[in-house]
Amino acid sequence: MATGPVKHVVLFKFKEDVSENKIQELIDGYKALPGKIEVMKGFEWGTDMSIEGLSQGFTHCFISTFEDSAGRDAYVPHPEHQKYAQGLLPHLDKILVLDFVPEVAL
Amino acid sequence: MATGPVKHVVLFKFKEDVSENKIQELIDGYKALPGKIEVMKGFEWGTDMSIEGLSQGFTHCFISTFEDSAGRDAYVPHPEHQKYAQGLLPHLDKILVLDFVPEVAL
Repeated sequence: MATGPVKHVVLFKFKEDVSENKIQELIDGYKALPGKIEVMKGFEWGTDMSIEGLSQGFTHCFISTFEDSAGRDAYVPHPEHQKYAQGLLPHLDKILVLDFVPEVAL
Repeated sequence: MATGPVKHVVLFKFKEDVSENKIQELIDGYKALPGKIEVMKGFEWGTDMSIEGLSQGFTHCFISTFEDSAGRDAYVPHPEHQKYAQGLLPHLDKILVLDFVPEVAL
């Protein structure tokens, strides 16, 4: 069982017909989750500006931090998370979620 | 042009025949880069422990931080990065690289 903080990395690729307004609404909805879900201890996000051509079509990255794996375990089924995910998923072409307990090397 | 710090998110999926020893060697090689490449201002990594089944086969996550996009631009062609990448890529089934200037919302 992981004991340290957990980083929760989420990548989105929206469907091509999703409007800019809808994308902004979905970003704003994600940004609102830390105010509703107490176990979210950190949150940052941004849009891809990589130059290596290896983003595999993903355009948006969100990194949440949980105090420990129990916090992550509480987040996944949280009603506010589930409600957000239900409104989000129909607009996504692809999603990727990867969690890890960081070893900080610098 | 981005002005703030840049987060450089890299995901690996190794080929199935890559040994544990080789994987460890490649992780150690990545961890050694911040000691060789001055523009790397932060580095953390870990292995996937997500529970949502959306990691798309990726198993390792590395997040480097650069002071600004100029730092990232210097990193990509840096000889030590290029040398590492050349030794790494033959062992990967998939790689994903996404950079972003984080908006910190919590």
